[in-house]
Amino acid sequence: MTSSTTGKLLGVGTGPGDPELVTLKAVKALQEADVVAFFCKKGSKGNARAIVDAHIRPEIIEMPLVYPVTVETQKDEPDYLRSIAEFFDRSAAKISHHLDEGRTVAVLSEGDPLFYGSYMHLHVRLASRYATQVVAGVTAMSGCWSMAGLPLVQGDDVLSILPGTLPEEALTSRLLDTHGAVIMKVGRNLPKIRRALQAAGKLQGALYVERGTMASGSAQPLETRDESPAPYFSIVLVPGWNTRP
Amino acid sequence: MTSSTTGKLLGVGTGPGDPELVTLKAVKALQEADVVAFFCKKGSKGNARAIVDAHIRPEIIEMPLVYPVTVETQKDEPDYLRSIAEFFDRSAAKISHHLDEGRTVAVLSEGDPLFYGSYMHLHVRLASRYATQVVAGVTAMSGCWSMAGLPLVQGDDVLSILPGTLPEEALTSRLLDTHGAVIMKVGRNLPKIRRALQAAGKLQGALYVERGTMASGSAQPLETRDESPAPYFSIVLVPGWNTRP
Ligand SMILES: C[S@@+](CC[C@H](N)C(=O)[O-])C[C@H]1O[C@@H](n2cnc3c(N)ncnc32)[C@H](O)[C@@H]1O
Ligand SMILES: C[S@@+](CC[C@H](N)C(=O)[O-])C[C@H]1O[C@@H](n2cnc3c(N)ncnc32)[C@H](O)[C@@H]1O
Repeated sequence: MTSSTTGKLLGVGTGPGDPELVTLKAVKALQEADVVAFFCKKGSKGNARAIVDAHIRPEIIEMPLVYPVTVETQKDEPDYLRSIAEFFDRSAAKISHHLDEGRTVAVLSEGDPLFYGSYMHLHVRLASRYATQVVAGVTAMSGCWSMAGLPLVQGDDVLSILPGTLPEEALTSRLLDTHGAVIMKVGRNLPKIRRALQAAGKLQGALYVERGTMASGSAQPLETRDESPAPYFSIVLVPGWNTRP
Repeated sequence: MTSSTTGKLLGVGTGPGDPELVTLKAVKALQEADVVAFFCKKGSKGNARAIVDAHIRPEIIEMPLVYPVTVETQKDEPDYLRSIAEFFDRSAAKISHHLDEGRTVAVLSEGDPLFYGSYMHLHVRLASRYATQVVAGVTAMSGCWSMAGLPLVQGDDVLSILPGTLPEEALTSRLLDTHGAVIMKVGRNLPKIRRALQAAGKLQGALYVERGTMASGSAQPLETRDESPAPYFSIVLVPGWNTRP
């Protein structure tokens, strides 16, 4: 195989949910691609694939990459880490088979591919061996603050992107030491996130957004959100804009 | 005037430079708009307006909002703050005139409108009085790390967005206390940013990107970049991805 006969790997950001937040470049990538790959859970096509549905040509080869594990709580256990690493190895091998045959493979990624996306695990396994192009996408946080019309940071503000999985004390001290903040991976971390914001004196003003930019999306002050676990697609936005000329 | 007769305000993200990184929603907004407003310096149309050139209908009313001051060094002086606040007041008044006449006004914003964008200053002046919609865009940082194929953060990583205008000690300590980082507003802060990264032990691996995703864009390790001032459209990316299953 030579670089003139092998195919191209495309990491394609689909944006956060609204099909109109797809870029022209993503649409073009899907027109060029022979194969479209996407991560999903068993029995579901996954969010990224749903977002670009209108742009999938009937003759394209579809390649669902079905996650082997669903329980994220075991995340730090060696068994989980081994099984997920093997899953990414296997997925990369399946994709490289198509690339070796000269096919262009578009790997979909919800939001932006290189911003906390699963695509990154394929990228590090394949990008050094194949021609690769990453098509940037609108991130979930941009989609969420735009939907809510909430300006987050301006001028010399610092913005901290924090995973809701951080320990409570770490969350609190990081919230104290920043202007704006975005808290990703809310899910069952919601009560902890609320306590950390309260301790940092920033609960008031914090916005909870669920399924941002999707048809079923909604936003509300975190203070009024009940304590039931949040869905996977949820985020907390903490505005930090204090200087307003 | 009533809400049924006044026009709609659209904050439209254009993405970071590549005209193909415009979203379908932004294209649609420009098809609907009667007026297109954009910030620029005297004698230039500005980057945002250039990016969407292909989507500007000939009959649209163009409204350049020309910045009154160019010297950013006086940024903290009362004179500068007053003159820039007056400029935003004047710009908002011009736009509200069109909105009162029932016209839809699209205000262009490079990248994402509510992420360190000038549009925010109009949003806070107008959004409570008129029907308003913000169209999220691809941020400069997403465009830059995608162009470079550089995965930045994954899993439980913390990402800090830092303005290069911060004092050197603040930059250093924030770089020490994060996984990934993005440093915006590089320009003449480049030597200081380099020293801060060096002090934090993160100079190696840091990537300098200039005019990311534009035709003239380029990326190189910050270590090899010379000391001449960086252009306005430049950014430094500090990868933080340390766990790779
Ligand atoms: C694995 S990360 C993927 C981030 C994505 N690559 C991006 O660019 O934003 C998944 C997290 O993103 C957030 N998220 C993604 N889409 C969302 C949406 N439509 N609304 C709210 N949060 C969302 C949630 O916090 C979720 O836990
Ligand atoms: C006022 S902020 C605007 C940010 C924009 N709203 C966004 O969503 O990214 C301007 C800063 O963004 C960065 N920037 C914007 N466009 C860029 C590009 N194409 N390449 C590199 N940096 C860029 C530079 O650091 C610049 O100082």
